[in-house]
This record gives sequence, C-alpha cells and structure tokens, in this order.
Amino acid sequence: MTVSKSGSGLNMSRRIRRSPYTDRIEQHGVRGFSVVNHMLLPKAFAPTVEEDYWHLREHVQLWDVSTQRQVEIRGPDAARLVQWMSPRDLRGAKVGQCLYVPLVDEWGGMINDPVLLKLADDHFWLSIADSDVLLWAKGLALGAKFDVEIDEPDVSPLAVQGPKAEDLLAKLFGENIRSIGFFKFAWIEFQGTRQLMARSGFSRQGGFEIYLRGGHLGGALWDTIWEAGREFNITPGCPNLIERIEGGLLSYGNEFTRADTPLECGLKDYCSLSSDLEYIGRPALEKLQAQGIRRDMRGVLFDGPPLSGVGIPLPVKSGDLHVGQITSGIWSPRLRRNVGLSMIDRDFWTPGQKVEVMLSPDDERAGEVSLLPFS
Amino acid sequence: MTVSKSGSGLNMSRRIRRSPYTDRIEQHGVRGFSVVNHMLLPKAFAPTVEEDYWHLREHVQLWDVSTQRQVEIRGPDAARLVQWMSPRDLRGAKVGQCLYVPLVDEWGGMINDPVLLKLADDHFWLSIADSDVLLWAKGLALGAKFDVEIDEPDVSPLAVQGPKAEDLLAKLFGENIRSIGFFKFAWIEFQGTRQLMARSGFSRQGGFEIYLRGGHLGGALWDTIWEAGREFNITPGCPNLIERIEGGLLSYGNEFTRADTPLECGLKDYCSLSSDLEYIGRPALEKLQAQGIRRDMRGVLFDGPPLSGVGIPLPVKSGDLHVGQITSGIWSPRLRRNVGLSMIDRDFWTPGQKVEVMLSPDDERAGEVSLLPFS
Repeated sequence: MTVSKSGSGLNMSRRIRRSPYTDRIEQHGVRGFSVVNHMLLPKAFAPTVEEDYWHLREHVQLWDVSTQRQVEIRGPDAARLVQWMSPRDLRGAKVGQCLYVPLVDEWGGMINDPVLLKLADDHFWLSIADSDVLLWAKGLALGAKFDVEIDEPDVSPLAVQGPKAEDLLAKLFGENIRSIGFFKFAWIEFQGTRQLMARSGFSRQGGFEIYLRGGHLGGALWDTIWEAGREFNITPGCPNLIERIEGGLLSYGNEFTRADTPLECGLKDYCSLSSDLEYIGRPALEKLQAQGIRRDMRGVLFDGPPLSGVGIPLPVKSGDLHVGQITSGIWSPRLRRNVGLSMIDRDFWTPGQKVEVMLSPDDERAGEVSLLPFS
Repeated sequence: MTVSKSGSGLNMSRRIRRSPYTDRIEQHGVRGFSVVNHMLLPKAFAPTVEEDYWHLREHVQLWDVSTQRQVEIRGPDAARLVQWMSPRDLRGAKVGQCLYVPLVDEWGGMINDPVLLKLADDHFWLSIADSDVLLWAKGLALGAKFDVEIDEPDVSPLAVQGPKAEDLLAKLFGENIRSIGFFKFAWIEFQGTRQLMARSGFSRQGGFEIYLRGGHLGGALWDTIWEAGREFNITPGCPNLIERIEGGLLSYGNEFTRADTPLECGLKDYCSLSSDLEYIGRPALEKLQAQGIRRDMRGVLFDGPPLSGVGIPLPVKSGDLHVGQITSGIWSPRLRRNVGLSMIDRDFWTPGQKVEVMLSPDDERAGEVSLLPFS
C-alpha cells in the first residue's frame, strides 16, 4: 500500500542498502519499500494493509527491520556519553534491559527516539529510527574527548510479531525464552553463534526481535523461522500502519522532528527534570517546562470515507483555529473510523474535544481528540 | 529507469520529505524517486535515461536537487570548525567560492563529500551528499565547545544544466551572470529576494545551481525558469547516470562509504598532507600514505550487452583475483560500451589493464581499466 500520487518506483542503487533478508523478502513478492537509515525497509506485500492488520492480530509475522540500525558505544566513558545524550534517567538501567530513550540536541529538539540496549556497564546499542545517530554520537565523543569506541556493528534485526510469536520462538529456541520479560533481552543460540533476542517490536501484538549479528546468517535465520512458522500461519510482514497508529507508536520524522521537543510530543515521562541529572538540552527543556507545555501528542478519530494514508500532514482545526496536524493516519477497520496521530494545542487536547480534519480546503471531516493508545 | 527487481513502489510519508518543487515534478509525470537526506530525489521522467543523456548534452534541463541539503555553520569559530572537519586546505578559500571537500572521521573514513560555499569569513554552507552532516557538525561543535550556530536553512537547490543553461539564465537574470566563474557564486534577484547562484552542478555539461532560500518561492522559481526555457527546449531532468559516470562524478554511498578513505577513492588531491594543517583524521591519512595507497578510483569499460544499472556491485576480476567492484555502471550509447566506476587495486590500476566484470558467476564481460573522466 502506498499513497504515492504518481505510482513512482524506487530507484535502486548500492547507496540504498539491501539487508541480509532482502533476497528473501523479494522472493516473497515485496511490492513496496521505504528508505530508513540509507537502507531498504519493506512496506507492502501481497495482502492489503487491512488483511495484514487482522493477520498480525491473530497469527504471527516475520519482519525485516534491519533498518533499525545499531549505534554501538563501548568503553570507559560509554555510560557517561549515553546519559549525556538523553534526558531519560539511565542510572538505574540494568544489563539485559531495553529502554526507550529520546535523544535531543542543545535546544531540546528531537534527534531520534531509539531503544537503548544495555549489554554491559560499558557496552550499549542504540537501536535507531531514521537519522544518523552514529554521526551525532561520534561527533560528541570526538569533540568532548570521551574514551569510547563507536561504530555501526553488523547487526540486522529480524522481528517476529503477533500472538503466536512466543510459541513459535519457544519451539525453535527453547521454553526459556518465555521468561524474557517485556523490554528485556537474553541470548539464544543459532547455528553455533550467540544472538541477542529481545521481547520488543514496533507493534502492540507481542513478539520478539532477534538482533542478528552476522549478516551472512540472515538467509538461514529467515528460513529457519519461516519453516517453523508454517504451522502458525506465518507470513512476511512489516510494521502495520493501522496497528501502530491504533497503538500510539510514534515514528520519528513523521510524528515529530528536530523542530519538536519530547515534552510536546508525548515523551515527557522519559525526561528527567526533577533530578540533578545533566544532559544535553536540559536547560532548554527546563525553560520550556517553566513556560508551560503548549502541545501534546494525541490521537484523532475522524469520519470516513476511509483514508489510505497520509503523505502531506492534514490540518486539524477547531473552527478557524489551527490546532494540530495529522502526521500519520489511516482507516481502522476495527474502530470503523479514520485514526490519526497529531500534536494538539493545549486548549484543545482534552479527550473528546471536537475537531475538524481537513483532507483538503473543501473536504472537512468531523473528529474528536483521543488519548493514546486508542481504545 | 530503475533496476528494481520487484518493480516496487516507494511508500510516501511525511518522513520522506517533499521539496518545494515536488508538486511541479509530479505534474511533469515523474516516474521514479530515490531518497537522499530524508527527502525525495526525482530519478526518472518519461524519456529513457539515454534520451535524457543526449538531451542534456545538447539543450538544457531543470533539476530538483533539493536533496543537496545545506549545513549552515556561522559564528566566530565557523572557519576553524569547517577546517577541522576537512583534510582540504581551506586557508586560501575566498568569499564567493565553492570548494569540493572530503569530510572524514578520526579513522580517515569518508563521512560525506560536500561542496563548501564560503558566504563570509564566518559563514559557510556545506552542500551535502547522503548522510546527516548536520549531526556530525553539531556533535563536534557541542563536544568541543565551538562558538558556532549550526542549522539546516530553508534552502532548496534548483539546477539548470546543459550547454544552453547560461543563455537561459542570462535572459532571466541578466548578462552579468555569464561572468560567474566555474565553482564560484554570486547573487541574483528573484521576486524581490536575494538568491545565491553558483556555476556548478552534478554534470559536466555546464550550468548553474540556484540555492533558493525560501521554499514558498519554489513553484514560482520553477515556473519562471520553465517559461523562459521553452525556447531552449527545456525539459525536467535529474542527474543522468550515463553522463555522470562518463564524467567521473562520484556518489557517496555508491562509489565510497565510511569504510573508504579519500586517498583510496580518488580524492587524494583534496587532502593536505604536506602542510602543518590540523584536521580530524590526519594521523590516519598520514599512516595510510606512509604504508602506500593500495587502491584508486578508476573507470572500467566493458562489453555489452547493455547494462541498465547496477544495484549490487559487480565484481571486477583479473583471472582469479578480485581487484575491484563496479559500484555504478550503465551502457554508454556514445562510447558503445558499458561504463562503470570502481576502486581498483594498485597492481591493476594502470589504464588499459585488462579485467573481467562479473555480471553473475556465469556471465563474464571483458573490460579494461580507464582513467576518469572517460574520454
């Protein structure tokens, strides 16, 4: 499913990197890609996005999410650098834990919203959204002379998502995997290699992500999971737009950019402003909090006809006032409304507030504000 | 023209940014995009890439190259920061000058290969290829406490390329523009605004780039040039793969990556190793030079049938030895050979050296090494 106006193809070149699984997903008839972190992200297979949505909620899917590149930071100053980069208090973080961390610049503007994996007290992976956090981290480290090594390791995440994911992976890797807690990770064995598996993923349907180290194993890992998955009705898939919007899962570059701060885009709970913690952007965030936060992330439910997606954000209005914009939106077959994500201005952010979504200057849809996730 | 195996479409979202000219190029029936710097780069229109090639060599084309984002660095430490970021000696750079500058990390690995524009002694634009140089520069500046402001300004380059470009732009902006020297820039007036125009562009056919400040003027600028261009047989276009390979114009992420140093990818003339200049990566480059450079950028001419493009690099061999890989390649209708770009190992880099290009393990094409540009 694309919302391309011109049905344009994606020009392929070495620069837009293939993943270790691209061969497999091409064999499965992938019909659309996006580009994230200079790499191909599969975005559409044969079924419609609605068929994929129902399937994800009932069965299990295999997702090439290699575009979730890792920024590896290790060394004596690794913990200090990672903390400096994020407003989230990481002092209590434990080895084996995943943490969702906003990264901000000196103005408090969002650089990325990765998941941080703590592999050891001096060893971290930042599993990133679409911006070159590697260059940010390297620049900071070099400039401030942190004693760290920073690189992009040969790690390509493969996600297994859906209610049957755990049964499938327990069959493959042993019952112990069931005891991996949410947003925790452990180590499994695959073809004699030690691999990290986390209970995480860009959906609310449950599942795991295998952070495969060693791209040469990609085909074998895909095939292994695929074969074992047949009895569970496995299909190839990708993060589902309907499901992730309903679930309130935000996408960097879509819901927020460097022009936005975490306090305004629904991430204030991840910002430590009451402790004495020092991090880049703290003064800016403190100032914003003192002035009063004027926008927050919300859902918007609005009337059909069904939307197939949003390319250019759709204005959200209350009468003549512009109070937000739908940055991601689509028809929910379950809720039988269009669902969208938008930062909404303070005076209008109360759940239930009536708003209008402008599909065009002449096409206005009645809607109302909702908390996230949608219920 | 795409080399997509699956004919896959590009999924559109806010994250993959439209430019101020995207509306216009969609009206012109753009058929393919790439993604550079999180923005749409048009890559194919109605004619074939060969038709576009001949047209570019004879007439004039209008190119949306907004993906050449600017990293603006200004302030008391701007010149010092820019010099620290590049092995090229910038001490003699003048206001009004464009300079092609490798940017490298502490290992000498290529971060980007932008064009530097010196707007004033304390004001620079880096016109970048596909990596987030903004984050690299901001990280370095914040870490080392440079007194600078760094941002991505609202600047969207529009290129006018081809032998008739100068006549067209002189008609629009005055005869004075003819005196802008190669890789120099000057200021023109458009609708009451002052705009930068440089004699530059990603082709060898001559022409200019207007670094339009103010995206709201994009449609008007496009229309103005288009109307004036009718008598010159103007068409919409984009950097032409045949033309830029023949011309030896290199593409970051294709011909070289962070795994390569400028000494090996044909950019050693841009690296100052004999002066006392200090910059990031100097020790690494000195060491490499002392050890002896083992690869250099070359062209390869090889037999047909015609290639329509290269996605996965093609091995270049000499007997059993792997001596390079074609990272960009295509059929040249003018030279009636396939032309490709490849770093070639030292013992084989002599022009005329016979090599074989492996399109597949069973499809070997005879070829020979050439200097760049191809003659």
